[in-house]
Amino acid sequence: MPSLIRDRAASTPAMLAIFGDEALLRAALRFEAGLARAQADVGLIDAAAATSIAAACAELPDVELLAEAAAHAGTLAIPLVKDLRGRIADPAIAALVHKGATSQDLADTALVLQAKAGAALIVDEARRLAAGLAVLTKAHAATPMIGRTLLQAALPITFGAKTGQWLLGVDAALTRFETEAAGALQVQLGGATGSLAGLDGKAFAVSDRLAQILDLAPAVAPWHARREALAALASALAILVGAVGKIARDLSLMAQGEVAEAFEPRVEGRGGSSAMAHKRNPTACQTALTAAIRAPHLAATLVSALPQPHERDLGGWQAEGSVIAELFQLAHGALSVMAPVIEGLEVHADRMAANLAAAGVGTDTGESQNIALRTLAHYQKDR
Amino acid sequence: MPSLIRDRAASTPAMLAIFGDEALLRAALRFEAGLARAQADVGLIDAAAATSIAAACAELPDVELLAEAAAHAGTLAIPLVKDLRGRIADPAIAALVHKGATSQDLADTALVLQAKAGAALIVDEARRLAAGLAVLTKAHAATPMIGRTLLQAALPITFGAKTGQWLLGVDAALTRFETEAAGALQVQLGGATGSLAGLDGKAFAVSDRLAQILDLAPAVAPWHARREALAALASALAILVGAVGKIARDLSLMAQGEVAEAFEPRVEGRGGSSAMAHKRNPTACQTALTAAIRAPHLAATLVSALPQPHERDLGGWQAEGSVIAELFQLAHGALSVMAPVIEGLEVHADRMAANLAAAGVGTDTGESQNIALRTLAHYQKDR
Amino acid sequence: MPSLIRDRAASTPAMLAIFGDEALLRAALRFEAGLARAQADVGLIDAAAATSIAAACAELPDVELLAEAAAHAGTLAIPLVKDLRGRIADPAIAALVHKGATSQDLADTALVLQAKAGAALIVDEARRLAAGLAVLTKAHAATPMIGRTLLQAALPITFGAKTGQWLLGVDAALTRFETEAAGALQVQLGGATGSLAGLDGKAFAVSDRLAQILDLAPAVAPWHARREALAALASALAILVGAVGKIARDLSLMAQGEVAEAFEPRVEGRGGSSAMAHKRNPTACQTALTAAIRAPHLAATLVSALPQPHERDLGGWQAEGSVIAELFQLAHGALSVMAPVIEGLEVHADRMAANLAAAGVGTDTGESQNIALRTLAHYQKDR
Amino acid sequence: MPSLIRDRAASTPAMLAIFGDEALLRAALRFEAGLARAQADVGLIDAAAATSIAAACAELPDVELLAEAAAHAGTLAIPLVKDLRGRIADPAIAALVHKGATSQDLADTALVLQAKAGAALIVDEARRLAAGLAVLTKAHAATPMIGRTLLQAALPITFGAKTGQWLLGVDAALTRFETEAAGALQVQLGGATGSLAGLDGKAFAVSDRLAQILDLAPAVAPWHARREALAALASALAILVGAVGKIARDLSLMAQGEVAEAFEPRVEGRGGSSAMAHKRNPTACQTALTAAIRAPHLAATLVSALPQPHERDLGGWQAEGSVIAELFQLAHGALSVMAPVIEGLEVHADRMAANLAAAGVGTDTGESQNIALRTLAHYQKDR
Repeated sequence: MPSLIRDRAASTPAMLAIFGDEALLRAALRFEAGLARAQADVGLIDAAAATSIAAACAELPDVELLAEAAAHAGTLAIPLVKDLRGRIADPAIAALVHKGATSQDLADTALVLQAKAGAALIVDEARRLAAGLAVLTKAHAATPMIGRTLLQAALPITFGAKTGQWLLGVDAALTRFETEAAGALQVQLGGATGSLAGLDGKAFAVSDRLAQILDLAPAVAPWHARREALAALASALAILVGAVGKIARDLSLMAQGEVAEAFEPRVEGRGGSSAMAHKRNPTACQTALTAAIRAPHLAATLVSALPQPHERDLGGWQAEGSVIAELFQLAHGALSVMAPVIEGLEVHADRMAANLAAAGVGTDTGESQNIALRTLAHYQKDR
Repeated sequence: MPSLIRDRAASTPAMLAIFGDEALLRAALRFEAGLARAQADVGLIDAAAATSIAAACAELPDVELLAEAAAHAGTLAIPLVKDLRGRIADPAIAALVHKGATSQDLADTALVLQAKAGAALIVDEARRLAAGLAVLTKAHAATPMIGRTLLQAALPITFGAKTGQWLLGVDAALTRFETEAAGALQVQLGGATGSLAGLDGKAFAVSDRLAQILDLAPAVAPWHARREALAALASALAILVGAVGKIARDLSLMAQGEVAEAFEPRVEGRGGSSAMAHKRNPTACQTALTAAIRAPHLAATLVSALPQPHERDLGGWQAEGSVIAELFQLAHGALSVMAPVIEGLEVHADRMAANLAAAGVGTDTGESQNIALRTLAHYQKDR
Repeated sequence: MPSLIRDRAASTPAMLAIFGDEALLRAALRFEAGLARAQADVGLIDAAAATSIAAACAELPDVELLAEAAAHAGTLAIPLVKDLRGRIADPAIAALVHKGATSQDLADTALVLQAKAGAALIVDEARRLAAGLAVLTKAHAATPMIGRTLLQAALPITFGAKTGQWLLGVDAALTRFETEAAGALQVQLGGATGSLAGLDGKAFAVSDRLAQILDLAPAVAPWHARREALAALASALAILVGAVGKIARDLSLMAQGEVAEAFEPRVEGRGGSSAMAHKRNPTACQTALTAAIRAPHLAATLVSALPQPHERDLGGWQAEGSVIAELFQLAHGALSVMAPVIEGLEVHADRMAANLAAAGVGTDTGESQNIALRTLAHYQKDR
Repeated sequence: MPSLIRDRAASTPAMLAIFGDEALLRAALRFEAGLARAQADVGLIDAAAATSIAAACAELPDVELLAEAAAHAGTLAIPLVKDLRGRIADPAIAALVHKGATSQDLADTALVLQAKAGAALIVDEARRLAAGLAVLTKAHAATPMIGRTLLQAALPITFGAKTGQWLLGVDAALTRFETEAAGALQVQLGGATGSLAGLDGKAFAVSDRLAQILDLAPAVAPWHARREALAALASALAILVGAVGKIARDLSLMAQGEVAEAFEPRVEGRGGSSAMAHKRNPTACQTALTAAIRAPHLAATLVSALPQPHERDLGGWQAEGSVIAELFQLAHGALSVMAPVIEGLEVHADRMAANLAAAGVGTDTGESQNIALRTLAHYQKDR
């Protein structure tokens, strides 16, 4: 019942799928299967039990029934674990499902698994955008245009100096995102109250083994009520979106009819108007700017939620999942539309020259060309 | 591909449906059918043409195809209008679909139609909550308990004074929401650039007739780039959520084991823990507090988007639809869980008395009983 | 030690003074003097005692000492009341200072008194801006220009239709602000825990009389932990700032060299550049847009703070005073720079005509002139 | 005219001074003096000229006059440079003041110098807090208490496990802050339009030398419109405040009369009530929680401002200075009150034991003690 039409306008099918219900359930089931296997590996339960549990985790339950049951119970884990147990014939084995875990262990680890898949897409697309910006910066390092401050003509620059700034912005934001993702995407296993009770003194071994199985970072300690890393990941995403939004802001201004210095590449059926055949709308910029308006507020939601009481909050952490999903979706939406725009950008150097001449401020572009080259060198050293 | 599980945890099936794709498309089609009929009614097009267009609007197009096409085109209207025109045999009539309108006319009016349906649910549930609070306030006007400031025992109050404050908060927030909804839920018809061109000097007549047909308020002028009313509606929703969150905050504190003064009613299968059978979690409070964390940031998104350039923004208004949908969903989710909690609240007056006695600050509740009665009278005068 | 340079860049001396320390202390002392007088008027204390207390309130204490003492105590009231009592020779009268009141009564009422003074300035300046917009709208109802959507040339409009939209936006935002101010600017008197204890059954009479004395609205009940009205006032201010920011957004785009349709009036020494003598920066727009970026987040702070626990929060309400002060300051700053810009706007109708012709979309401005006239009529009916 | 009383309630005299006007002017003058000296060092101007300029920079101009002039001009640099030039007798030397620089170079570098001083205080106080938390964690690694989830009694933990979580939160947030500060606190020198024109091909040498002189990091390129690093620094501060707020949240809940497990240390004259002598308010927690409500919205302001047009924004970057100042002030305020609270915390282990026993959930604290020790080890490895 959520709106695919509205979500798809802001994001990509790939990222929507990563944060969709099927992916959520697969991640939740990977957690349960992985938990059982980790416990078997450290000798807490029989390998056969772990195999039975993994088998029960192979089939997806009905999404609508589960959504309803989870809303009623107040947590996804309760109906999901009940469902899993119901699929296992041997009651002794069924009782081992979710052993030592709590609802939030499942919810957090599933979210982290989804975020890890999402982060890979973000990194790919941001790298693609950066690569496109590097090409543009090299090509236009010396292309003169008017620099503009406070939306007024100022002094000459080169287009490569401008795109080099875009490149530095995206590159730095991507680096930050990768750092924060490496820090935040940890396994979560704390048990009922985060004390890792009920695992016979083998709790850390189980937790570390589970991290290995799920290909996640291990955790120094459970982080049920310690959410700084998630908030920082969200902030890094919003900042990355801002770096993309900066490009969209500039391009949409350059595409104004009176300026006409650069345009999104023509794509059949894209950028039209339902009322005006002559329009050529900067549709990708629109998507990126939409994201840049929404993302800061979404990230701030997680920062606002940080003072979470005691060993697990009511309200705070439950607010995070949907917000993080939206941030990944908006970020991927923005990156995915802007990368091809940069790759295929229509640059009108003649118009840049004409606007520069009209400004009547001479032709000294200062160190603009060097700025372009320095940003390129910095980017290449980074990668 | 959006997550029903995450959305359903925060909202109700009814409100999710109102902002779902089917409802969005029905609203969009109502706009197109209504527009044709309004134009027929004022003599701009033939009645028969309007009938044909209405017939074409009776069938819902495929959501997934349309979502993809709208994302590609940059607006829902383009593929939807194309689809509608394709259904009409007579090309002269097909060309009349969307006559005089622009993409944003369709998008805004559809959003307003969805919001109007949503507002009705909000009002119903907020009234129900207020009614429950009034009952509680009357019943406990004289029930003594300790008042607490800065989370410390202060002086005696009555429970009815506390619930009377909740009542005033919800009631005032509801009144504000109703006022803002009445102001914001206007028809949108401006045409390509908001000038209402192309309607042969009958534009205002068409717009007003369209408003009648759709049961919306008429507009002084198109509001493509004038979004204060929407931002105010969003703010009013967030404030209403805050008023509900205040109740949840207090109740969750009162339900602490060491305090034990009030509890959410027992509901089979609700409030349990996946790890601890003895737990009785304040699950409704959790939902309301989650909403209270998210809603302020969502509302602020629309306020941030206000300085929208020229006659239509790129980025700003496209950010609004999803955000408004989420606000309605969170608000209805919060109201719908808290109304039955208030109606069935377990009040432990004995424990209130014991905690009061333990505080050792006497028994003078001051004007608490009068405060309860004054809030009741104020509420009853309002309704 | 706060920065006058930074604050003055964003606001006016008049509004900075209203929320400055001297005004805060005068408001706090008016509360204490008024409280004593109200208690005398209803017969709770002697008139002579009230006179002595009023005399003690006539002199401002040292701001720096008080700031330090208040930070130490955790509340302004404690050192201020101590200081006042120290000034009164008769210990029996000294003990009557602050009788029946709590720290938050003083803090809230002082804030409300400051906000009321601030609201008068806001209303004046917003009316001035609206009046200027009305003049502009009348003058340019028929001045043709190109309408722009998604920053692209669309179809013709008139400049008066554009300014009429600005007028409607400001006018509606002002009306909302006035409504919310009328609702929020209530006296606060609740006593220690909001129960109005300690006033011998005359508490409501004292509260109502105090409201009269201070020229504030009376309160149905104390509102220590019921803050929706304040949050709504803050939201209304942010929305008003957004309406002003919309004008600044449009003007700064119209002032681009390549567009050159309208400019801020020339003011000696204003809008220059420290590096480029030819620059003519839209300095007023800069101030308004700065406010429009900051205000939404400030308003959201108050909405986030709504779920305040029990009878008085720790953290939530203490966050409000500075944030409200900043909102008033930013709003008045934005209004005060934009009003003269609108009054003296340089409108280049020739350039509008040229840009329109260059767009090649004909000259049909549709109902633009009527839109201008309708917005004017709506505004005049309102005032 | 800004309010010292309100600001001091939220921050420390030291941090207020760092972002006060005198410090701002000293930083601005250091920029101008340093710029001249850097230009002399690379041979662009005479050493004697640099010495004259440095001499002119030794005296602070009048703050009020300058604030007024800067507000009029739209930038601090214009009146300040004019003032400096007026102090230099030789017009040829006077003309060299601010050579090659633009207003934003001065504004940004001054802000960065203030922020660098502020960052040192933040780091000191956060380390102090972390050290206090380490002591507490070691001391109470095995002190049993009830763990609480969703504000309900769950299962036993140790107090050291809880404080270890606080420690990890603060430590990780501090590490992030240090990283972001190292990245963001770069010299700014771009000249009129960020092209570094007007410095005879020695611009990068001047910029790097200026960075050395001011003890700031050098810049790959000017960053007038590339603000991701500042936004990230702001986010890191808000997250650090959140980590402190988490401690305050827990402590304020533990200090509830019915729980009574931990209290802020008694400080003469602190935590009292203006109405209730028996109160012992958690005043430090109040300050920290206030900061935790405000900081996320302030940080989000900078993220919202990221898509800054072209080579310098109007509105976006002008919004940053005050917001960053407030973030540093709130963060230092929160850290400075909480560090001594942690150092002197009254821990009532007997009451923890009693509450645990009352919960009736046994005494198995699981791996709590190991969690405490692991967090300690992690912290010690970090430092």
